[in-house]
Amino acid sequence: MKLKFTKMHGLGNDFVVIDGINQSVSLSPEQLRQLADRHLGIGCDQILLVETAEGRADFRYRIFNADGGEVEQCGNGARCFVRYVHDRGMTSKNEIRVETLSGVIMPRLEANGDVTVNMGIPRFEPREIPFIAEQRAPAYSLDIGGKEVEISAVSMGNPHAVQWVPDVDHAPVLTEGPLIEHHARFPQRVNAGYMQLVDRHHIRLRVYERGAGETLACGTGACAAAVAGIQHGLLESPVKVSFGSGDLLIRWEGENQPVWMTGPAVAVFDGEINL
Amino acid sequence: MKLKFTKMHGLGNDFVVIDGINQSVSLSPEQLRQLADRHLGIGCDQILLVETAEGRADFRYRIFNADGGEVEQCGNGARCFVRYVHDRGMTSKNEIRVETLSGVIMPRLEANGDVTVNMGIPRFEPREIPFIAEQRAPAYSLDIGGKEVEISAVSMGNPHAVQWVPDVDHAPVLTEGPLIEHHARFPQRVNAGYMQLVDRHHIRLRVYERGAGETLACGTGACAAAVAGIQHGLLESPVKVSFGSGDLLIRWEGENQPVWMTGPAVAVFDGEINL
Repeated sequence: MKLKFTKMHGLGNDFVVIDGINQSVSLSPEQLRQLADRHLGIGCDQILLVETAEGRADFRYRIFNADGGEVEQCGNGARCFVRYVHDRGMTSKNEIRVETLSGVIMPRLEANGDVTVNMGIPRFEPREIPFIAEQRAPAYSLDIGGKEVEISAVSMGNPHAVQWVPDVDHAPVLTEGPLIEHHARFPQRVNAGYMQLVDRHHIRLRVYERGAGETLACGTGACAAAVAGIQHGLLESPVKVSFGSGDLLIRWEGENQPVWMTGPAVAVFDGEINL
Repeated sequence: MKLKFTKMHGLGNDFVVIDGINQSVSLSPEQLRQLADRHLGIGCDQILLVETAEGRADFRYRIFNADGGEVEQCGNGARCFVRYVHDRGMTSKNEIRVETLSGVIMPRLEANGDVTVNMGIPRFEPREIPFIAEQRAPAYSLDIGGKEVEISAVSMGNPHAVQWVPDVDHAPVLTEGPLIEHHARFPQRVNAGYMQLVDRHHIRLRVYERGAGETLACGTGACAAAVAGIQHGLLESPVKVSFGSGDLLIRWEGENQPVWMTGPAVAVFDGEINL
């Protein structure tokens, strides 16, 4: 089977995007793993398959991890999806209704080519994160090998522990991050974020991701950090979140409101592989 | 600039191969680094540029590392090069004269599609490796954190410390490998090989590569291990060397003779990138 694809990334989180509308695509988990393999295949964090919607949505898209398993929606993947269907003339709409495993989402193409995605409503109740604490608080003290570390705990669908640091370049992300990730008070482990305040609308961020280590950029981590900062009164929406690989813009109107994330999506190359 | 390329690999050592004969190619170190980047570019260990020979050779090829620097020849790259020019009909010769930074080489396409490359003459004198020892010996005892480890020392243009283990799957490659790599008696560091004898013509091998950690397969490591085994009288040429990612066949006639390595080269996909 000859398969055409496009390699894309959103701040370094990279995707093999496959048009399953204009070519017939049926991929086994083994073939998905082969596509994702960075040495023996194409190489990517995730595979994004664009399909015809069954309901009243414009498209359906499915996301597969490098291990071949299907996963729910992903902010960086949604941005790449929107750029892909626009760049190929598969739609002329700027706001697109898309069926995903986690329901219908409506990403929006901005005038500058960036894409805005609804990232859902942040949750702060300890049992929703999940985080072991007597009650909800703006910050918690965590015992990390005898040292007290102050963190905020937020769920963006996945758990985040966020802390302020004077300088992200010298933050103990690689040494302390894994200790926070596996801390006993986070029974499903946690993403550890380190943010530096630049001004009331701008932070610099590094994230040690659960199960992945430090990544180039983490969309849900950017949301969690901005939300925690807004709640503390140190930040105001919109918040620019700078990673080493680029910026995301986060908007949040407050409790029980969804978080909106705007960021870039880049097509790197087109290819064709024999499977 | 639109650039066509083919992604290839030899036992997982992967290359972006670029035809610099039928398209005009001029790449800056920054562009080379971008091509090699696994998240933001195409992704590869090395970039292989095929050019017209200036002398009486059939082709010239140049190899660039992921950091943009030009390097000397590489056995896995030479195999991919031969398959590339054959698959594209750029030559019908099976033995090809190629100019490289390290002189003219003559890789040969075998009937089954594998490629044989001359890997040079192994060196055993300690100062040629370089290795600090009173005099040349078939094996040396190395003090690794208070434990004595017996190794053979061979240079295949780069230094190798090879040892026998009963079972490569349980060898301490990841824990002991870095200690051998940085051992004070190897002033330019060393590649640490662990081989398991299957029979007199077959070994299983894992290599902790200098500066890279454990890799899927190491061509010079396969040569060093086979040569050390032949010198010890435990192996006879030809020697099949099995890695997790596939096999290489090593031939060596003895002291002052070159080592011949035969192995596969695979084209994975074709692509086009805008630079």
